Amino acid sequence: MKLRVGILGATGMVGQRFIAQLYNHPWFEITSLMASERSAGKAYKEVAKWYIEGEIPEEVSEMIVEEINPQKAEKGELDLVFSAIPASIALEVEASFAKHVPVYSNTRTYRMEKDVPLVVGDVNPDHLQLVEVQREKRGWRGGIVTNPNCSTIGLVVPLKPIYDNWGIEFVHVATMQALSGAGYSGVPSMAILDNLIPFISGEEEKVESEPLKILGSLEGDEVKNASFSIMASCNRVMILDGHTEAVFLKTEEEFELDEVVKALKSYSSEPQKLELPTAPVPPIVVREEEDRPQPRRDRNAGRGMAVSVGRLRKNEGKLLKFICLSHNTIRGAAGASVLNAELAYKKGLLKV
Amino acid sequence: MKLRVGILGATGMVGQRFIAQLYNHPWFEITSLMASERSAGKAYKEVAKWYIEGEIPEEVSEMIVEEINPQKAEKGELDLVFSAIPASIALEVEASFAKHVPVYSNTRTYRMEKDVPLVVGDVNPDHLQLVEVQREKRGWRGGIVTNPNCSTIGLVVPLKPIYDNWGIEFVHVATMQALSGAGYSGVPSMAILDNLIPFISGEEEKVESEPLKILGSLEGDEVKNASFSIMASCNRVMILDGHTEAVFLKTEEEFELDEVVKALKSYSSEPQKLELPTAPVPPIVVREEEDRPQPRRDRNAGRGMAVSVGRLRKNEGKLLKFICLSHNTIRGAAGASVLNAELAYKKGLLKV
Amino acid sequence: MKLRVGILGATGMVGQRFIAQLYNHPWFEITSLMASERSAGKAYKEVAKWYIEGEIPEEVSEMIVEEINPQKAEKGELDLVFSAIPASIALEVEASFAKHVPVYSNTRTYRMEKDVPLVVGDVNPDHLQLVEVQREKRGWRGGIVTNPNCSTIGLVVPLKPIYDNWGIEFVHVATMQALSGAGYSGVPSMAILDNLIPFISGEEEKVESEPLKILGSLEGDEVKNASFSIMASCNRVMILDGHTEAVFLKTEEEFELDEVVKALKSYSSEPQKLELPTAPVPPIVVREEEDRPQPRRDRNAGRGMAVSVGRLRKNEGKLLKFICLSHNTIRGAAGASVLNAELAYKKGLLKV
Amino acid sequence: MKLRVGILGATGMVGQRFIAQLYNHPWFEITSLMASERSAGKAYKEVAKWYIEGEIPEEVSEMIVEEINPQKAEKGELDLVFSAIPASIALEVEASFAKHVPVYSNTRTYRMEKDVPLVVGDVNPDHLQLVEVQREKRGWRGGIVTNPNCSTIGLVVPLKPIYDNWGIEFVHVATMQALSGAGYSGVPSMAILDNLIPFISGEEEKVESEPLKILGSLEGDEVKNASFSIMASCNRVMILDGHTEAVFLKTEEEFELDEVVKALKSYSSEPQKLELPTAPVPPIVVREEEDRPQPRRDRNAGRGMAVSVGRLRKNEGKLLKFICLSHNTIRGAAGASVLNAELAYKKGLLKV
Repeated sequence: MKLRVGILGATGMVGQRFIAQLYNHPWFEITSLMASERSAGKAYKEVAKWYIEGEIPEEVSEMIVEEINPQKAEKGELDLVFSAIPASIALEVEASFAKHVPVYSNTRTYRMEKDVPLVVGDVNPDHLQLVEVQREKRGWRGGIVTNPNCSTIGLVVPLKPIYDNWGIEFVHVATMQALSGAGYSGVPSMAILDNLIPFISGEEEKVESEPLKILGSLEGDEVKNASFSIMASCNRVMILDGHTEAVFLKTEEEFELDEVVKALKSYSSEPQKLELPTAPVPPIVVREEEDRPQPRRDRNAGRGMAVSVGRLRKNEGKLLKFICLSHNTIRGAAGASVLNAELAYKKGLLKV
Repeated sequence: MKLRVGILGATGMVGQRFIAQLYNHPWFEITSLMASERSAGKAYKEVAKWYIEGEIPEEVSEMIVEEINPQKAEKGELDLVFSAIPASIALEVEASFAKHVPVYSNTRTYRMEKDVPLVVGDVNPDHLQLVEVQREKRGWRGGIVTNPNCSTIGLVVPLKPIYDNWGIEFVHVATMQALSGAGYSGVPSMAILDNLIPFISGEEEKVESEPLKILGSLEGDEVKNASFSIMASCNRVMILDGHTEAVFLKTEEEFELDEVVKALKSYSSEPQKLELPTAPVPPIVVREEEDRPQPRRDRNAGRGMAVSVGRLRKNEGKLLKFICLSHNTIRGAAGASVLNAELAYKKGLLKV
Repeated sequence: MKLRVGILGATGMVGQRFIAQLYNHPWFEITSLMASERSAGKAYKEVAKWYIEGEIPEEVSEMIVEEINPQKAEKGELDLVFSAIPASIALEVEASFAKHVPVYSNTRTYRMEKDVPLVVGDVNPDHLQLVEVQREKRGWRGGIVTNPNCSTIGLVVPLKPIYDNWGIEFVHVATMQALSGAGYSGVPSMAILDNLIPFISGEEEKVESEPLKILGSLEGDEVKNASFSIMASCNRVMILDGHTEAVFLKTEEEFELDEVVKALKSYSSEPQKLELPTAPVPPIVVREEEDRPQPRRDRNAGRGMAVSVGRLRKNEGKLLKFICLSHNTIRGAAGASVLNAELAYKKGLLKV
Repeated sequence: MKLRVGILGATGMVGQRFIAQLYNHPWFEITSLMASERSAGKAYKEVAKWYIEGEIPEEVSEMIVEEINPQKAEKGELDLVFSAIPASIALEVEASFAKHVPVYSNTRTYRMEKDVPLVVGDVNPDHLQLVEVQREKRGWRGGIVTNPNCSTIGLVVPLKPIYDNWGIEFVHVATMQALSGAGYSGVPSMAILDNLIPFISGEEEKVESEPLKILGSLEGDEVKNASFSIMASCNRVMILDGHTEAVFLKTEEEFELDEVVKALKSYSSEPQKLELPTAPVPPIVVREEEDRPQPRRDRNAGRGMAVSVGRLRKNEGKLLKFICLSHNTIRGAAGASVLNAELAYKKGLLKV
């Protein structure tokens, strides 16, 4: 018996990726596609501007989109919900579902709440437990588990083994982010052709704060943040999918470059040990070519779930430079939520 | 009477920009276009893949390209030479011209030689004097004056007022560089469409070293380098012209953000004071919109000679972030050489 | 004394081009920028997403946008109006202005009305007279003069000398149209990157009908349409400005290819004879290179007002192939309206 | 026992697609990768700029590229050869292999020879028999079978059912062709960004002649060409893969549009009947959306082997317009050769 899954915000870029990740999933079955009033009552194929390679999976294509409504959860017709709704409505909507079923959310609203886990499955799987605190504290049967912003995820995965082995003093990161991150109509072609836009609203704030919670340690009822400093500069470039990040960092301890390469290559975490269905093996792909990773070439590594790292270079003074790249709507969004839910499933945290 | 000017490497991207900057110049007149054997003997319009807006200036269009040969300089038929030749041949070729006439070079070969000025007209105009040392030491009547790499120029102009006012402890910079920097056929469309390339051969080394010489001080017969550290990560993006740079830096002294803005806006240097023909006024354009500068919108600021700076943000701990942008083949190449020559003209350094 | 000009729909792509064509015009002066309620009351620079090379002309930049309202025309505060408003509102709005002042419109609504001139200044300048019929019939003091769709203009200019000399049996044309034709936000980057869209709503119908009215003859009170057949297939490609059209046609009389080339090169019309301020000289630029015209290279020919034609090839059976290209928002829109108004000015048709 | 297959020109765009089509093929096994001297002796992964989604198949990746040499065929170490070599060397090279083994060639050199089959598996499978005439006439044990140019294939597949049912009087076609057709370095990014190129050397000649041989009838020892006229205008646009073609045609007999749609949808040919491994089912995909087919969305239909057709419109006078689209390096090149070889295999024509 598969768990019955609802997708909130099913028609957008991330919603589409939720469908692609959950379609034919061994444990989960899509039973409800929910979106705004405008789309409700129509067949999915009529309202989604499907941008993923290939056609919409046939069964999904004909499903009727429903209005977002927690009643289905309340009535016990859903076991689990994935959310890709706008932050502007998430505060109430996600709570209304979380009272009844687990909500795995890609939306930013609850990420920094003290009792809400902000989890990247391959980085801080232990933080998932925080949802028990949340359930108790808020009286919610389901609870909310969040995953971070797309740029945060691509960054924090390679930071993890570095942080564990040598500590981090600071991170400076310039991102070159794909168009799909802004939604289908988010960036007009007139704005970006022969151009780039050196600004993404709200993005730098997330990249500068979220990794500190993720790399923090769960101590009792709360997460104690990591304490290094981050500076981010976020840019939109003319690429369909795949965020590339140029990272400069300073470690606390002296390192040898080949040891960093080795630590990244051999990194593995709980999703790999548990052989979760969508876990990338390995989670980090180290490219040794002089000009990789590149978004069109590497975004689909590990079926879009691996982070590719390359151009590792050491400068004097414990300084390290590298490029990391990940698929922003798979690894950086829908895939991250699904991986979190798989992890919770194995740990028994999806039972309501 | 205008000075008779030769252009070495006249058919390439930078060679074309030399023509655009020098055509109808009040002091200089193009009298010789020199390029490789392959192009020699043919009309310019037949061998140049002209990429600049508009047609080739009519007189230039019909000029016969000559093989690169210092005899013209030796015989007194040229007063001045601009060079955009490949580094692989510059060691000998530029020297052979420099024996007879001043050479203003965009090529990297001589940049870091102790007795060769590496000059950005708006930043270290006083370094030009070093050419006198060079003439004496090498017995050359003309001498070589170089300008730095395109990414260095766009960076070092805004660094100058910051360095002068608050000092700099380190600079980390990620570049997003335009296609024209690689030459007309340098980047296949199959390589860059829906993609970026996080590597430009030799570029990071230049950006990490050249600014230190430029911001250094001329003391007696040599330049004493500035002593802060630079880390660069250079990326190629699908944009015709205009290099964008995401800069992170730490100052030595505490700063207020509005004072930095003021220092950048009010910055002016010798080319502005001397009202040189191609000097941008102001040299730094500060954009206050939240999403500027952008390459397609801002690369032609100051007729391609200004550096646009925007998104100035302060982080705790004397940390500053900003985006700077400049036209890589005008401000970052041909225009920089021409501005240096104009400066030298006014200072009497072009007389042989 | 310049005529006082209002621009309806001043903030869009075509509205911006009206400003660029009319700024510093010797006969016309922009005195009112009108747009939708949403923009009214704000400075132009705050509401227009300026996409034209360079900054907004300074005086215009600070002008306060007004709501579209014919009162100004009624009160005698305007002498002439240019219109780039959506077709959905043009029926009433343009009429309300036309009662008082001449309206030169780029909107499709009135184009095919029997008493409304559909004019390309270089092709059928004599049709302008039809406005007198219209004034009398409708009791309007001003009247409406339209110019055709952007793709029609680029096509009909080179068709004119061919039609006059050899007659035309049919025209088949496949267009490759630029993004600006769809408005700033008309084509999402996610829709068009690594892609093209083989459909533009309503476009083929216009291209298949408008040229027949333009190449028709004014007989008494009406235009007798030309009688050949046209088939059009319209495609959107990822290019900022410049529509390219692949034309296949069959003439009525046998032709020699070099005579066609000669007829195109030597073509001239009334705007050239009258030396109108924005008339391109020549109106048709014949490119003889094997791979021209190209949009990025040729769209600005004749300051964006010339049509470039190339790849003229003859097949057996009176068949002719060629490529034509024109700037869709200058020659194909705002520039066409302005040229018509200049023509009317010289012919005394702007007097109310 | 699989047939041992060699690929001539294995490193280029089409060579890569040969590998992708033949890897894990049920009947064929890649045993030799041949390319120019420059690549010979090196591992495939070192010399191929792999552009296909995903990594190079692992076994192929490490294979050592060999110099092109017919000895292997002569010695009986190969059963079959696929060719993607430049036309400039094909005359001799393909003949030298054809003496010993069947050669299935994507190169243009032999296409129009009287005794050489020019075959699109889904259109004129019966023409394959012509290879027996060739073997006898030339004394070759293997023989050469060619497939047409990429643009021809995408066009001729939908023409076939129209030609069979209503006859064709003329075809006018404007192509918008992808970059991969020009080879990895064929189109510099500086040439095509914000641009298109309305010329592809030699392409129009092929599109105007090849379909007539393919739609011709095999009568005795030769093909009697179809007799309608074709005009083509070929354009390069900034798209990675997928040629789009705007077709205008006139039938001989009157047609109803819905009957044409039905004829296209229900079209099937010998590869479908024989259930060949790479045969697309159906060979023609009719898109009914108003804005399809689009290259990024539809190029991979039928695993890149189907031709997508859309925007079918009827004009008066037996005139039909439509858009067709196919993957230029799969359906239009390597996939076409492989399909021909599969067909020959089933018909017993690969036995030497």
